[in-house]
Amino acid sequence: MLHAVIMAGGSGTRFWPASRHHRPKQLLGLASDKPLLRVTVDRILPLVPAERLWIVTTASTAEATRALLEDIAPNHILAEPTGRDTAACAAYAARVLLHHDPDAICLLLPADHVIADEERFRSAMAAGAAAVRKNGGLLTFGIKPTHPETGFGYLRLGERSFVQDQWAVHNLSRFVEKPDRETAEAYLADGNYLWNSGMFAWRATDLLAEVRRQLPILFDGIGAIGDALETPSEDEVLEEIYPHLPRTSVDFGIMEAARQCWTVPVDFDWSDVGSWPALADILASDDRGTVVRGRTVDLDSENSILVGDGVLVAAIGVSDLVVVATPDAVLVVPRDDAQRVKEVVDIIRERGWADVL
Amino acid sequence: MLHAVIMAGGSGTRFWPASRHHRPKQLLGLASDKPLLRVTVDRILPLVPAERLWIVTTASTAEATRALLEDIAPNHILAEPTGRDTAACAAYAARVLLHHDPDAICLLLPADHVIADEERFRSAMAAGAAAVRKNGGLLTFGIKPTHPETGFGYLRLGERSFVQDQWAVHNLSRFVEKPDRETAEAYLADGNYLWNSGMFAWRATDLLAEVRRQLPILFDGIGAIGDALETPSEDEVLEEIYPHLPRTSVDFGIMEAARQCWTVPVDFDWSDVGSWPALADILASDDRGTVVRGRTVDLDSENSILVGDGVLVAAIGVSDLVVVATPDAVLVVPRDDAQRVKEVVDIIRERGWADVL
Repeated sequence: MLHAVIMAGGSGTRFWPASRHHRPKQLLGLASDKPLLRVTVDRILPLVPAERLWIVTTASTAEATRALLEDIAPNHILAEPTGRDTAACAAYAARVLLHHDPDAICLLLPADHVIADEERFRSAMAAGAAAVRKNGGLLTFGIKPTHPETGFGYLRLGERSFVQDQWAVHNLSRFVEKPDRETAEAYLADGNYLWNSGMFAWRATDLLAEVRRQLPILFDGIGAIGDALETPSEDEVLEEIYPHLPRTSVDFGIMEAARQCWTVPVDFDWSDVGSWPALADILASDDRGTVVRGRTVDLDSENSILVGDGVLVAAIGVSDLVVVATPDAVLVVPRDDAQRVKEVVDIIRERGWADVL
Repeated sequence: MLHAVIMAGGSGTRFWPASRHHRPKQLLGLASDKPLLRVTVDRILPLVPAERLWIVTTASTAEATRALLEDIAPNHILAEPTGRDTAACAAYAARVLLHHDPDAICLLLPADHVIADEERFRSAMAAGAAAVRKNGGLLTFGIKPTHPETGFGYLRLGERSFVQDQWAVHNLSRFVEKPDRETAEAYLADGNYLWNSGMFAWRATDLLAEVRRQLPILFDGIGAIGDALETPSEDEVLEEIYPHLPRTSVDFGIMEAARQCWTVPVDFDWSDVGSWPALADILASDDRGTVVRGRTVDLDSENSILVGDGVLVAAIGVSDLVVVATPDAVLVVPRDDAQRVKEVVDIIRERGWADVL
């Protein structure tokens, strides 16, 4: 049966101060009033019913996640004691799925992306799932690039192998780290490079077989956790083992050296909403290019992002600036430096100002 | 006897959002942790004891003013039902003083200026008061300019008339409105122009004689209010008449056409703290020219002003910017446009957002 696992463990540093340790990005209504995780769940539900939908979150956000997703059974909301990157998450989820369904096909999806054409999204997901059901292997979805983005990793397409429900399925040649501008332009011109979306499909057994072959320590840890599922020691074993699992990504830790990898190029409007400027790109701006959220007074600002989260933001004559205000913390940063918000969060952590983390 | 009247009725629009309708500039600890009004009172107390000190404030801030000044008798804190500019305030105060002391000499002082050398300030005030006690006339104190400021009105010095306690007393030639840059530079070079400090000295009888001659409607109104002082109808008469008094300034409404005006040039460090940049000028900046107040994270900002009033302000790589954050409102404006904050307050008023006024 087809299951979907939504990875909802992000720390959301990049949207500080709107996002916090206990209120990460996926729990925020950034692009609309609906939190991104709720949008993600609603987007997949027509394809995968709630009884085969799973959420992997972290201990610090499990309660808020359960409150947001009342239609998902509490035991389908898995809480990592601490985040150990996507390989551990994927393996843990695969092991849980197999516990309930030895033939589980798994779609692994991020909780915090924005996708405009939901029908087309589900069509691609269904095709990817059907492809791995028939052919095995590990499959990733690649987004056809629309501009030379330097903030994403890329996939190099291999030759086209077959067509599944009108979607071409290619061999995956390799994963590529975030490029510089010149390289990104070459990728765009080349046409054989896709943005790495972080969305995957596989049989749970195939994923675990690759983990066993490539990451035996991770496999053993997940195996011990799996053996304890639905026993009295489940929580204890999870809390003992999970924090020490090897930390690596699905992309570079499992898929890059996997025996068979596929990729399905998709062309729906997609954004990973990875920064305030990325969010602004998918929201409507005024005729001066400024995007506002919440209560604002905007006098002659240009190409700026003004977010008042329960706070009035008044801006006069600013350009290319991001202003995000909450009742206890405010961020002001030029649009082009928005990713430096991580440095601010690091400093706040160093200074021990836990109240604004 | 020498009395001092402190005008504490400012609306403090220029320091929004730190200042509000019910918490104007003089009640804020802008330059130090002590509110400006408290500093002003403490500065004059060694010259004028509390029993001859008077505060004129407005109805909306009377309570907060009394709370701040527990050493001043409540009946010395006069509340204008609504502000009617400085001529009405000066005439009202003079009438109240005469009610208690027919020989009252009055120093009229703003509540919200910063003066570094308090001894020298008091020496000048004492000399000005002695000068008008002996010679009558209306006297204003003029600050020797240190730069071609375009934000102040100026005084044109007349010839030197006499020396009082080592302070030269000049005839006042005329008041000049805020100049443009070129004119301000000419004033500075000329040497006979002073900044109009808004600090005055006169016999209460002399001030009221000029009001009677030049502003008979104001005189009659103040007369009716004066007749009701310490009667059961005092409050009622004040509330009925005061809001309709003619609205003009001491400078242009009374002094400019007065029969005898003096000015004492003074040279102590003085700031009217009229804007966020003016405040920053009297506070210590870091080696990049940035001034911070409250809890801040400052990454590479230059020549900026970051004020966190109960809110963490994080700024990354901003230049020449003013950021003022409170728990319910935030202002972001280039340093050179800081005076445009008034436009923001006007818009907030138009939109009826009383909670942030």
